[in-house]
Amino acid sequence: MQPADIKNVKITDEFWSRKQALVKKEVIPYQWEILNDRIPEAEASYCMHNFKAAGLLNEKMRKKGDAFEAPRFTYRGFAVFPEKREDAKDDEFYGFVFQDSDLYKWIEAVGYSLMTNPDPVLEETADHAIDIVCAAQLPNGYLDTYYIINGMDKSFSDLRDHHELYCLGHLIEGAVAYYLATGKDKLLKAAERYADHVASLFGNGEGKINGYPGHEIAEMALFALYDLTGEERYKALAEYFIDERGKEPNYFEKEHPDMKGKPDYYHQAHMPVREQTEAVGHAVRAVYLYSGMADMARLTGDKSLLDACEKLFESIVDTKMYITGGIGATHLGESFSLPYDLPNDTAYSETCAAIGLVFFAERMLRIKADSKYADVMELALYNTVLSGMALDGKSFFYVNPLEVIPENCKKDERKTHVKPVRQKWFGCACCPPNIARLISSLGRYIFTEDDTTLYTHLYAGCETTKTVNGKNVSVSMQSGFPNTGNVRITVTGAAGSDFTLALRVPGWTGGRYSLNMTGASEKETKNGYIYLTGFEDEAAIEISFDMIPRLISADTRVAEDNFKAAVTRGPVVYCMEGVDNGENLRQIKIDKRGTITEEVSDEFGYDVVTLKASAKRIIPAKTDFKPFGGLYSEFTSVEEKEISLRLIPYYLWANRGENEMSVYINI
Amino acid sequence: MQPADIKNVKITDEFWSRKQALVKKEVIPYQWEILNDRIPEAEASYCMHNFKAAGLLNEKMRKKGDAFEAPRFTYRGFAVFPEKREDAKDDEFYGFVFQDSDLYKWIEAVGYSLMTNPDPVLEETADHAIDIVCAAQLPNGYLDTYYIINGMDKSFSDLRDHHELYCLGHLIEGAVAYYLATGKDKLLKAAERYADHVASLFGNGEGKINGYPGHEIAEMALFALYDLTGEERYKALAEYFIDERGKEPNYFEKEHPDMKGKPDYYHQAHMPVREQTEAVGHAVRAVYLYSGMADMARLTGDKSLLDACEKLFESIVDTKMYITGGIGATHLGESFSLPYDLPNDTAYSETCAAIGLVFFAERMLRIKADSKYADVMELALYNTVLSGMALDGKSFFYVNPLEVIPENCKKDERKTHVKPVRQKWFGCACCPPNIARLISSLGRYIFTEDDTTLYTHLYAGCETTKTVNGKNVSVSMQSGFPNTGNVRITVTGAAGSDFTLALRVPGWTGGRYSLNMTGASEKETKNGYIYLTGFEDEAAIEISFDMIPRLISADTRVAEDNFKAAVTRGPVVYCMEGVDNGENLRQIKIDKRGTITEEVSDEFGYDVVTLKASAKRIIPAKTDFKPFGGLYSEFTSVEEKEISLRLIPYYLWANRGENEMSVYINI
Repeated sequence: MQPADIKNVKITDEFWSRKQALVKKEVIPYQWEILNDRIPEAEASYCMHNFKAAGLLNEKMRKKGDAFEAPRFTYRGFAVFPEKREDAKDDEFYGFVFQDSDLYKWIEAVGYSLMTNPDPVLEETADHAIDIVCAAQLPNGYLDTYYIINGMDKSFSDLRDHHELYCLGHLIEGAVAYYLATGKDKLLKAAERYADHVASLFGNGEGKINGYPGHEIAEMALFALYDLTGEERYKALAEYFIDERGKEPNYFEKEHPDMKGKPDYYHQAHMPVREQTEAVGHAVRAVYLYSGMADMARLTGDKSLLDACEKLFESIVDTKMYITGGIGATHLGESFSLPYDLPNDTAYSETCAAIGLVFFAERMLRIKADSKYADVMELALYNTVLSGMALDGKSFFYVNPLEVIPENCKKDERKTHVKPVRQKWFGCACCPPNIARLISSLGRYIFTEDDTTLYTHLYAGCETTKTVNGKNVSVSMQSGFPNTGNVRITVTGAAGSDFTLALRVPGWTGGRYSLNMTGASEKETKNGYIYLTGFEDEAAIEISFDMIPRLISADTRVAEDNFKAAVTRGPVVYCMEGVDNGENLRQIKIDKRGTITEEVSDEFGYDVVTLKASAKRIIPAKTDFKPFGGLYSEFTSVEEKEISLRLIPYYLWANRGENEMSVYINI
Repeated sequence: MQPADIKNVKITDEFWSRKQALVKKEVIPYQWEILNDRIPEAEASYCMHNFKAAGLLNEKMRKKGDAFEAPRFTYRGFAVFPEKREDAKDDEFYGFVFQDSDLYKWIEAVGYSLMTNPDPVLEETADHAIDIVCAAQLPNGYLDTYYIINGMDKSFSDLRDHHELYCLGHLIEGAVAYYLATGKDKLLKAAERYADHVASLFGNGEGKINGYPGHEIAEMALFALYDLTGEERYKALAEYFIDERGKEPNYFEKEHPDMKGKPDYYHQAHMPVREQTEAVGHAVRAVYLYSGMADMARLTGDKSLLDACEKLFESIVDTKMYITGGIGATHLGESFSLPYDLPNDTAYSETCAAIGLVFFAERMLRIKADSKYADVMELALYNTVLSGMALDGKSFFYVNPLEVIPENCKKDERKTHVKPVRQKWFGCACCPPNIARLISSLGRYIFTEDDTTLYTHLYAGCETTKTVNGKNVSVSMQSGFPNTGNVRITVTGAAGSDFTLALRVPGWTGGRYSLNMTGASEKETKNGYIYLTGFEDEAAIEISFDMIPRLISADTRVAEDNFKAAVTRGPVVYCMEGVDNGENLRQIKIDKRGTITEEVSDEFGYDVVTLKASAKRIIPAKTDFKPFGGLYSEFTSVEEKEISLRLIPYYLWANRGENEMSVYINI
């Protein structure tokens, strides 16, 4: 099974097109300014500086003294190359060791965006950025400006903490996207050369490096490069990284002898990957690894690896995932915490980790169409991923808490990672470009396909075609998601073919949906998918999924959520905000037998379904008897005030200024 | 007003005598072993080693090459000087910079213990320890083994982080106690010489050090030395430290230029002390400072200082104190958090901080007999201080959480400071000896007195005398605390004198008490004290305070405690434990209109009042509908099971093995 060819999926969906347009209009241009250090109030990126500096040095090495003249042109009225930074020297590297990856992520987002929204000026800008990248590449294929500038003698000497293989991964992902979008292969060839160079150095032979990435991503990127090129050597290199990880003697311990004997959970290098059953360590790293493992399991049919993937997926979903699809409960190491430890107010739940969970789930779907994977993919996407970006596309959450009391976040040192409103941009700029590339590439998450079957995982309006038994089948989907559960799909040209359409029944429907169709018939329902076959030349399918609002409670072992419930509607998790309901949200108790009504609001710039629930605000009766100082009073009774509780989708929180927010409500 | 002369207060109380005996039997001998590195499984202390090494060097300096022969003798069958540690060199210092203070705290505990429990062998041991200390003192009076061993050139160069003045404070406190107990002044003279040396170096003149202690305690210790000796220069030095603190230019910033412009809340040096209104920073440091400030306010009548003390006391009691009398809500910097931020499961609530709060409250009582101070003193004492020590006196809590789920403490990195059971001893051994010295010196916290009036703050059985108008008045108190609120006091010999007995009415009574007496009469009730006068030669007073169990709720701004209440009875805060009630205590909901009944239990080795409350265990009904993976189910209803909830005093928790505990209960 493969994802549908992204170039062949045209998004027509109102909800998602709006997000994609926002990425194109706001995120991509803003990030370009950032990469070029043209936003005075933002932290300096130096990313383009580093490539330019590396190119200069590289050129000097090659031409023995000739100056490297970087191409100059303008984009949106700005010179692509800024005036030389006052503080930046031509031969110095600045920023994080993984600074290069910021440009690669930008190029990836640009690539996917160009597929849906062609833009010759943006494409030209990206072409020139690619020229700069390629000028920095060493003749042997090496491409990481940190070591090119600081000296190659230490290259690949710190796989654990430095990010050369991470940058390789993002380079490949950017190059693949840009090639798919434009057919231009300059960056793709550069990526292949870098991958070939790495492949020549790594392995178990004499004088080879038998390590693997400290921050995973190269694995899944190399499999994507293999999927595109069919070159076995990329698959082999990715497999090598996965097979070696966590083996004894531990490679990272060799690099860092001070860590000897301490299991390296953080980098998922505590044991061989096939033995791993619990999701641990840095959450983004973890799900990037698991995505690569799933790719390998799919391509090799390796049963033990597939077992590990399934166990790790279950470990996340059954014990370590917030109801928002967020993962990574603790800011300490941006990591998974222990099972059932899912604090709401000190949550980490990094946007990038939710994105990584989407990657992992999508890869599991390529192995098996089981709605349990699509449910999680959808949950992460509609909640934590979308929460990461403001409505105006100009500010972002890195951390996605499930409860916020703004004053506490600001003053309590244990919550300094939690921000009550989205921030402009970050020094470590992983989340905004990660959102940009995911939203721009949404077309690859809607379907997977095999020879005859188109599996529909996400209900987002789009058009695609598929060739079955030599017939060109056109599929057009209209979807009311997430406002309504109504989906209409038309299929034309499938008559006489084996074309099969598999429609996911989301877990949140509880199996409640209505299906009507003409020109096709229901064959079976399996693993959460309805299989339709027997298509006539024109077929119309209407399926309506039940989106009744529901009260959802967490497993009682999640101590933080005892006596609380969250409200969900379809795939969307709701929250309450102070601006609607008054502050001190912890005083609110939802009527557990009350009905929850829907209202369509245009307050957020487009139609959004908000909810009203009957609830009480409960305030302990004031007593003057304070036996132990001003803080403590004898409890006598509570004053209960009926209120109408307004709930909005979680992904929209903090778009109306700073205020309290909580997903969980007392029951 | 002064505390009653501790030598003149003989504790006869069963409850407290048991604790004092435990300190004498277990804590003091064990600590002596620790100080001498004779407990193989404990972290090395090196404390006696350091004194011996300093004495050796000192002796060498004086005698130009003669070896220093330390006195050898035995105590409890052990050589006082262990065989030379394999790893310890004669001329090296080991341990924390404040390691010396451990011995001083031990001597203080020994001193107070000797007053109530004479022990010639223990006294001889302490005498010899004092010989070692004095041998280490430099001819100019300087006495801190860290710098004597490592070189005096850097002495007093890092007042903020090193602890020379902290050690001075503990030296004085130990010396004063030992002198009061034994009349022996060798250590007292050493303390005075060190204080004189410090006084000669500090001040605002040319070439003087205009700094103050990084860890406060010297202030209150110097006032105690002044109280004992009447020497104005000790009072002046303490006043200097208090007056200089936080003034601009900031002394600690001069020492540590990297901190320039960052308000030093941690050391309470962010502003002059008279301007401080909010309790901030390291909680132990803070209350030690405030204790010194209260001493100064009492001795000087400084109104602005008294105002600051009152505001700081209110800041603690009204916004930052746990119901257990614990303070310091965050382990980050062992500090006060923001107002109303009082998390139960990540609480710091250090034992030493509660002890410091006892010090502060007691000093406020010397200024004014107001029961609000005694209420807090009593609360901290009966709950957090007592919680710090196991029933067998052999293990200790440094951190006193209000909720514990053992597995979480062990696995969640944010709770590594929280231990589910008491620990043997700590590398930083502040709490056990601090408990030891406080419990041993309980006699000084029961009463304060002025010329005619004996103010009774704590109800603990004891005997004391007071001379009024030339008449020797004998007072004998019997108390049922904390098991009953019944107190019987007999006063003899007061006829014809102005003797007045002030009896505190604890805040927790809500004014409910019964008073019967013969041979005396009630004059007035003021600030929570009943004043009795007109004593005949034999007077008997019986007062019975209402100890009905109560449900207490925290201010609604304490978000952690919304919808919860604690149970108290008299000054004792109760808690529920898993061993009595089954684990998953968060599922328990107390019947807010139910009655709470008392039971006397002998399970803890003596009679303890435990409580039974009607409650429900509430478990969400299991539903198979899990729309978002294994963790989340649709909420339908709850299963409620009636239970009888057993509550035990908080100070007894974790004496029956590791299990869940919670002070707050859902209501």
